[in-house]
Amino acid sequence: MIKAAVLGATGYAGIELTRILSAHPDVELEILGSQSFDGQPISEVYGNFAHVLDLTCEKLDLSRVAMCDVAFTALPHGASKDVIPSLIEKGLKVIDLSGDFRYDDIEVYEKWYNQKHSSPELLAESVYGMPELYREKIKTARLIGNPGCYTTCSILGAYPLLASGIGSSDNVIVDAKSGVTGAGRGLGLAYHFCECTENTKAYKVAAHRHTSEIEQELSKAAGREVMISFTPHLIPQKRGILATIYINLKKKSTTEELVEIYKEFYKDEYFVRVKDAGKLPETKHVAGSNFVDIGMVADTRLNRAVIVSAIDNIYKGAAGQAVQNMNLMFGLDEKTGIANAGFYL
Amino acid sequence: MIKAAVLGATGYAGIELTRILSAHPDVELEILGSQSFDGQPISEVYGNFAHVLDLTCEKLDLSRVAMCDVAFTALPHGASKDVIPSLIEKGLKVIDLSGDFRYDDIEVYEKWYNQKHSSPELLAESVYGMPELYREKIKTARLIGNPGCYTTCSILGAYPLLASGIGSSDNVIVDAKSGVTGAGRGLGLAYHFCECTENTKAYKVAAHRHTSEIEQELSKAAGREVMISFTPHLIPQKRGILATIYINLKKKSTTEELVEIYKEFYKDEYFVRVKDAGKLPETKHVAGSNFVDIGMVADTRLNRAVIVSAIDNIYKGAAGQAVQNMNLMFGLDEKTGIANAGFYL
Amino acid sequence: MIKAAVLGATGYAGIELTRILSAHPDVELEILGSQSFDGQPISEVYGNFAHVLDLTCEKLDLSRVAMCDVAFTALPHGASKDVIPSLIEKGLKVIDLSGDFRYDDIEVYEKWYNQKHSSPELLAESVYGMPELYREKIKTARLIGNPGCYTTCSILGAYPLLASGIGSSDNVIVDAKSGVTGAGRGLGLAYHFCECTENTKAYKVAAHRHTSEIEQELSKAAGREVMISFTPHLIPQKRGILATIYINLKKKSTTEELVEIYKEFYKDEYFVRVKDAGKLPETKHVAGSNFVDIGMVADTRLNRAVIVSAIDNIYKGAAGQAVQNMNLMFGLDEKTGIANAGFYL
Amino acid sequence: MIKAAVLGATGYAGIELTRILSAHPDVELEILGSQSFDGQPISEVYGNFAHVLDLTCEKLDLSRVAMCDVAFTALPHGASKDVIPSLIEKGLKVIDLSGDFRYDDIEVYEKWYNQKHSSPELLAESVYGMPELYREKIKTARLIGNPGCYTTCSILGAYPLLASGIGSSDNVIVDAKSGVTGAGRGLGLAYHFCECTENTKAYKVAAHRHTSEIEQELSKAAGREVMISFTPHLIPQKRGILATIYINLKKKSTTEELVEIYKEFYKDEYFVRVKDAGKLPETKHVAGSNFVDIGMVADTRLNRAVIVSAIDNIYKGAAGQAVQNMNLMFGLDEKTGIANAGFYL
Repeated sequence: MIKAAVLGATGYAGIELTRILSAHPDVELEILGSQSFDGQPISEVYGNFAHVLDLTCEKLDLSRVAMCDVAFTALPHGASKDVIPSLIEKGLKVIDLSGDFRYDDIEVYEKWYNQKHSSPELLAESVYGMPELYREKIKTARLIGNPGCYTTCSILGAYPLLASGIGSSDNVIVDAKSGVTGAGRGLGLAYHFCECTENTKAYKVAAHRHTSEIEQELSKAAGREVMISFTPHLIPQKRGILATIYINLKKKSTTEELVEIYKEFYKDEYFVRVKDAGKLPETKHVAGSNFVDIGMVADTRLNRAVIVSAIDNIYKGAAGQAVQNMNLMFGLDEKTGIANAGFYL
Repeated sequence: MIKAAVLGATGYAGIELTRILSAHPDVELEILGSQSFDGQPISEVYGNFAHVLDLTCEKLDLSRVAMCDVAFTALPHGASKDVIPSLIEKGLKVIDLSGDFRYDDIEVYEKWYNQKHSSPELLAESVYGMPELYREKIKTARLIGNPGCYTTCSILGAYPLLASGIGSSDNVIVDAKSGVTGAGRGLGLAYHFCECTENTKAYKVAAHRHTSEIEQELSKAAGREVMISFTPHLIPQKRGILATIYINLKKKSTTEELVEIYKEFYKDEYFVRVKDAGKLPETKHVAGSNFVDIGMVADTRLNRAVIVSAIDNIYKGAAGQAVQNMNLMFGLDEKTGIANAGFYL
Repeated sequence: MIKAAVLGATGYAGIELTRILSAHPDVELEILGSQSFDGQPISEVYGNFAHVLDLTCEKLDLSRVAMCDVAFTALPHGASKDVIPSLIEKGLKVIDLSGDFRYDDIEVYEKWYNQKHSSPELLAESVYGMPELYREKIKTARLIGNPGCYTTCSILGAYPLLASGIGSSDNVIVDAKSGVTGAGRGLGLAYHFCECTENTKAYKVAAHRHTSEIEQELSKAAGREVMISFTPHLIPQKRGILATIYINLKKKSTTEELVEIYKEFYKDEYFVRVKDAGKLPETKHVAGSNFVDIGMVADTRLNRAVIVSAIDNIYKGAAGQAVQNMNLMFGLDEKTGIANAGFYL
Repeated sequence: MIKAAVLGATGYAGIELTRILSAHPDVELEILGSQSFDGQPISEVYGNFAHVLDLTCEKLDLSRVAMCDVAFTALPHGASKDVIPSLIEKGLKVIDLSGDFRYDDIEVYEKWYNQKHSSPELLAESVYGMPELYREKIKTARLIGNPGCYTTCSILGAYPLLASGIGSSDNVIVDAKSGVTGAGRGLGLAYHFCECTENTKAYKVAAHRHTSEIEQELSKAAGREVMISFTPHLIPQKRGILATIYINLKKKSTTEELVEIYKEFYKDEYFVRVKDAGKLPETKHVAGSNFVDIGMVADTRLNRAVIVSAIDNIYKGAAGQAVQNMNLMFGLDEKTGIANAGFYL
């Protein structure tokens, strides 16, 4: 059994990790780290865990975490700067859900996060935890920068077309809609039920940090610098991101041809489901699962592809992908504990 | 492996059964019966199953179902009248999710369902599938009448107090609120999103069939006839029933004393979670799980207990309880495949 | 034109008052009091008011409020203890939306609100602002204690049957479900969208303050002390309260007979709509309006009436009723500015 | 008083018209046309109208409609082909909410609607009912083609920038999100509450009819043919459209400069509210009102404008705009009966 710690267990990403790991056949959850709920049984903080998980939240104690094989750090950006180097040194594998270890280029991080990076050497070593692109590196990594939610949805949606050379890297637009769990459990007027329900809005237009992460990967796909318009929106549902991606086509193509490119690209990927022409993703098909659903339409009138990509933001966009990475790092079948269908209802 | 058929697989109870069984370690799903979607892959009817379950819906063919060990019948009331006797004869165990096999007294059925019962002898043999009350009988049964959703929530909420002799059997009132999955997938103006969201209403006041099922069991608890006011309400959420139960107290009691009665009554039940005094159930704590959460307050001013009971109507109230029954009938640990915590998010 | 001030304008009751008054043909809104948003245009705090209402929020300044004819105080309980006497003294009419001036008996207030009342003499003078019961007194009042939301729904639903002598005053149970606006705009984990949506729960069981207000009025209806079980629930919608009321019947009655009692009792009331037998209220029929919809079923099996009453909690349950009171106090047609149908959509 | 008929009164656009007109100071509602509910009081079809509007639905009878001054036709496309010419002939003014009379070019209509137009001469005479663009023509028109919901939101959002010459007419992308009332009251699995809630999806990608309407008007703005990507999405709320519009900039511009262009363009428009730089629209600010809120960001990194436009799809996007047109056609103040702030809650 893999002994695991979740640090930041009582936020939404952390508790989804806890839910997945508590049912994982090869994992023993040892530590639920939480500053705010130190000393409280997890089943009091989240009533759904009563009778299922008998663990008590605890403040960070590195010597206790050291008994684990893996630590998931679901802390605010920058918060784990001392913690992660220390855990790595103690021989743990670390999967970090913050933005701190997702970048190839430290300057990009420092510009978009507006802070100095505290562990440049670890950043250099860390692997971007997107198994569909970096599976082999993940297997031997000590430190994973687990991708962001918008990022996962956008990159996996756009990558094959840009990599194919058919999609133009100019004028790429990603219009993304996210459920409210993406904002976390912290209080804020914008997340009050009465302000949030029956409401849709854009936010951080042209300024969201995930832009830089998406550009980093899509530039590799295209083999040249890609700059995108990325617009996040808040929609009145809990789970789910739907990204609508606009890419101009360098040569006339049909929807069927584009679908074929995607099916070929993802032919060995269990967690990526490419829709047949005529069908499109919906967030309810992926909610509660680690799947990415991708569908598309070639607008022959405009010579432009419209690609629609859907994930569950806290599952494939956070906790589920983290477990997928853990599975790879420990030599397990990548699907272990996360192969299930979504809830639908 | 237990070979299983789900008849009526594309309704909401049926698809939840399919979801649970597709991940059950001891079950092989063989047949998904559906009149309406005959010939369609289940992953086209419910997109969440793509890559997970490779089965095609099929019309009822008794000879094919006969190869299974167990059949779950999730068909409208009365619809399986020829099917079930035939399956029993072929040696299958049958778990029926309709109201047809839940009654001790055929007259009660015929009065509340307003139709003649087609298999009186099977009704006599069938066992009421509520493991918390009839575990031993279920283990050896051939035919289970799987309880209704309102019923499960109400009976388990009221039983201990009435059985204790402290609760009065006069003036028992059950005010129940149900999510919309309880109404099934059939179309109807009342279930149109725009009519349903931001709306709460009572329906079938003093006339809902589940009343008779609740009274049957609570009368056994009390050792005398119990008649109840049962009021179902439709609330704007997908999953969940919350039943608020009012029972007069024959002797002065504190909340702590009542809680103690419940904790003792359910002390061996994994799926029943009795809340400590001061805490109350919420539907989000049970959604996506087989748990029943029960909390209560003794109103000492009025000498009355207010008991609040919560379940997921399509899980513990239908599909999950059916699997719990199957586990018992096949000698498995009762919790197999359904022990998980709810979604919370 | 009546010059009006809304003190506490940026809470949910206050802003609904502002919305109604901004379109009232006989009112000129002069002052929007708000401690938190002092100096900000109301259209920045609530974007829906841009181009409609050009007022800036301001801190309380009694000398400025003194230029008004009427003040609506939508402040927390106890908060307006100095304010209201001062306004009354300056000759304003005051409609208070807190619980401070709703009680006949100061001891009841002090027990349920757990604080000393600061203006016993004003309490003695104040009139309970429920026009259906106290219209004549309201017309000449200087100070109105505007009823609570649960209260309005419950009292108007139960009053006629208790007053008729047919309903028993023993064992009266009010099971009420409220939308989230009832909790106000303050932040709290329970009101975070992700915690609130897809969730229903009971709270303050046997302990909610509105119990005392309901008992006060129903005791007058029955002509003897009435004590009730009152259970509030939070449901995932913005607006609306549905109260399901159980009253035992002292003589056998049909639904039609009960409906007749209610139609007679409310025959002159524009804002009370009694449903014909066979129909029941829904919150969406009243949302955005000042109506109270009441329907009922006589359960002849149990000799018990189940009465369902619905209002919009922040309209008839707060702001709309306050305007109805203002209309009466200033000699206007009671319906002025609030006669409209609800939104439905 | 203007005598008005609403034909198709029981659909969602029709009932919103009915709601607005029932409170309009200069209108007397005479006829509510409905095939499906012929003979039923409107207050039974929509419970919110009880005590407010005492009209009974009736089948179409042209001779009765002839007594009116204005008819609003809220019927399916093509359905009013005989009706409208007849009403015009009888001297009524007609405001048609279908797509039949919105086009300059009959071929565009016939291509996108895939049917022959039945009244080419009336199409030639009809005026496109967008007051912000065609106010003077509307005042004297006999027949108005009332714009579509997506259309209104998109055109008013993009027009000023294209008209200014700064926005490029290449690569215009409109990504629109609509509430479910846009789909009407007809039943369909996609609109079942349980399928719709917690779900977001794109539909009719590159194929929605409103594309042609948007292109028609934006081409006039740009002074050359504009072809756009238009992607409609369904989001889990009742009211509201949010359109996110991407337009490349021909010269470097700041957000403030773009805002200035919009403020100037709409400086005389009550119903268009241009947001200051740093603020963006939300659907809850416009729900229940006739306002269009427009905000924008100049992405200087990409030299591209991202414009966000929000309306209430059944108000400004259908019923409210129809009333605005009626006001103009009858010489009333354009704001009469529709000047109110939105609900917010």
